[in-house]
Amino acid sequence: MNNITIKDIARKFKCSPSTVSRALNDHSNINVDTRETIQEYAQKMGYQKNSISLSLLNKSTKTIGVLVPSINHSHEAQMIQGIQSVFDSLGYMLIFCVTNELHSLEQEHIKRLLSNRVDAILVSISQETANLRDFSHFDMVNKRKTPLVFIDRDIVENYGSSVVIDDYKGAYLATKHLIEKGSRRIAHLAGPEGLLVSKLRLEGYLDCLKNHEISPNTDWIKHVEFNIESAIEPTKSWFESELRPDAIFGVNDYVCYGAVNVLMEMNIRIPEEVSIVGFDNCPISPYFFPKLTTIDRKSFEIGRLAAQQSLEMLSKDDFVPEKSILSPYLIIRDSTQLS
Amino acid sequence: MNNITIKDIARKFKCSPSTVSRALNDHSNINVDTRETIQEYAQKMGYQKNSISLSLLNKSTKTIGVLVPSINHSHEAQMIQGIQSVFDSLGYMLIFCVTNELHSLEQEHIKRLLSNRVDAILVSISQETANLRDFSHFDMVNKRKTPLVFIDRDIVENYGSSVVIDDYKGAYLATKHLIEKGSRRIAHLAGPEGLLVSKLRLEGYLDCLKNHEISPNTDWIKHVEFNIESAIEPTKSWFESELRPDAIFGVNDYVCYGAVNVLMEMNIRIPEEVSIVGFDNCPISPYFFPKLTTIDRKSFEIGRLAAQQSLEMLSKDDFVPEKSILSPYLIIRDSTQLS
Repeated sequence: MNNITIKDIARKFKCSPSTVSRALNDHSNINVDTRETIQEYAQKMGYQKNSISLSLLNKSTKTIGVLVPSINHSHEAQMIQGIQSVFDSLGYMLIFCVTNELHSLEQEHIKRLLSNRVDAILVSISQETANLRDFSHFDMVNKRKTPLVFIDRDIVENYGSSVVIDDYKGAYLATKHLIEKGSRRIAHLAGPEGLLVSKLRLEGYLDCLKNHEISPNTDWIKHVEFNIESAIEPTKSWFESELRPDAIFGVNDYVCYGAVNVLMEMNIRIPEEVSIVGFDNCPISPYFFPKLTTIDRKSFEIGRLAAQQSLEMLSKDDFVPEKSILSPYLIIRDSTQLS
Repeated sequence: MNNITIKDIARKFKCSPSTVSRALNDHSNINVDTRETIQEYAQKMGYQKNSISLSLLNKSTKTIGVLVPSINHSHEAQMIQGIQSVFDSLGYMLIFCVTNELHSLEQEHIKRLLSNRVDAILVSISQETANLRDFSHFDMVNKRKTPLVFIDRDIVENYGSSVVIDDYKGAYLATKHLIEKGSRRIAHLAGPEGLLVSKLRLEGYLDCLKNHEISPNTDWIKHVEFNIESAIEPTKSWFESELRPDAIFGVNDYVCYGAVNVLMEMNIRIPEEVSIVGFDNCPISPYFFPKLTTIDRKSFEIGRLAAQQSLEMLSKDDFVPEKSILSPYLIIRDSTQLS
């Protein structure tokens, strides 16, 4: 026998191969003493990582569970297309669950996916889960040794790999672009309060203003929902008041569509009088009037990478969770620049 | 004992209660002789319909399977929201499967859903299934007595209930509106060939022209995909030629967004020179420029009704499949009428 395997170590310690794998990966689920004992033994015996595929140990169902908080925006649809682009050709079946941002539904879906013995779980956590910080259902996933990848929304704890976009940076880029175009009175249609994505984009906006020595005007920061309608009233109130903003950074493209509608009805010219930058790069934004400058959040790419990550986790039994933070980029169109 | 039940009849004939139920519902899965024998006996013994709930006979998993061909458009998202609006409050879990218009994937998903013992299946069939006319997987669903509801896309065979929109009528309404607004040279950005929805909308358009004594111009009918981009070239070619259309009926709102972009670049005024009507009433259409006249296809309502239908099928053991065809309606906005 050339190399000692995880199975050999498991036999030695009378535990499961996956416990050994986790111990070798220094996973917090395994008692510290156990981890050290196993690691020392593995080192002594010359254990080589990646020598066994988990898929040989576990029976594969060729099914992947995907949890998303909603499916109302093109962002989620594109992310799912990215996931499909990897799995479809490999004969995996995808099961989608929508949690409606509810912790209880997320827990139930996770339980059911585990009992259906899915090969891996990709999850964009619900807002309620983020707020409650109750991640016990992910403990269950870890205990079942099912690969877990957090997509789009990461959590701090180390339950699995994650693929997310740098929201802070995207917001910073958007705001910087408006400043470079000469805007100083930059309003922000911010996302719903309590959401991490809203917080990060607001911080990117505020820090960029600060770094350019522009004092934020709290009147020009309004929390809205991620839809067109909720942007109407805040935008109206800004432009009916005496001191008008000269630019708007919207938390997503949809709220910008709403703002554009208000400005057009008030005969305010875009970008001559007011510049607008969104976030998401929805498929319609290049065809909207005016064509919308926005931040591309690489939705398809997030899905594709998360799927690949889960496949890697499936193929190796001692996979160290990886955190991928993608960089968003600015796409300049007519809403900030005359063509 | 007051009433004879399906269980009593099943005991008499040494078959399952569900076989009796299907025989009483005159279901084609049951041999004609058996059906008649059971029906005669039931009538003789004074059997009363709806006296037993199927949910008492079958163990419920409180899980519903939903198959859709894609999730790229707001139509599917709204349909799914309609389904959720019924099931979420009742504690049912929804499992979504995307078939990518593939027959093989649809079959696999159906098999898996059945092996997961879902309580009911809602399915919008894939284009490939419609073309191949291979419905053997729905036979399996029927054999397992799992309630089956066809959403959005019906099939002719009697495998279950269905909730669809009247595509023909919607297209007729759209074309009629353009004629009433004075248009005579009405072009049609038709859907992909081979799709039933494309065919029905094209027929509605052609019949309306015919009924108003307008000869269709085959040059003005172009098959495109359901996205913005594919509408660009056909629209350009129409308006670069000598005889221009004075109106466009688009198979969905997205192709109209593409057409609008071409016309705006050519400085052709909407609706003064060209009127445009779409189909779907996407959430963005009321905020597009110009605000798009369109046909509302009641996506949310289709989902809601289909969900209710499946619940009714679950609650009764002798449910006769129902076909619901919803009427679409016209929403007039700026792309056909000056505001």
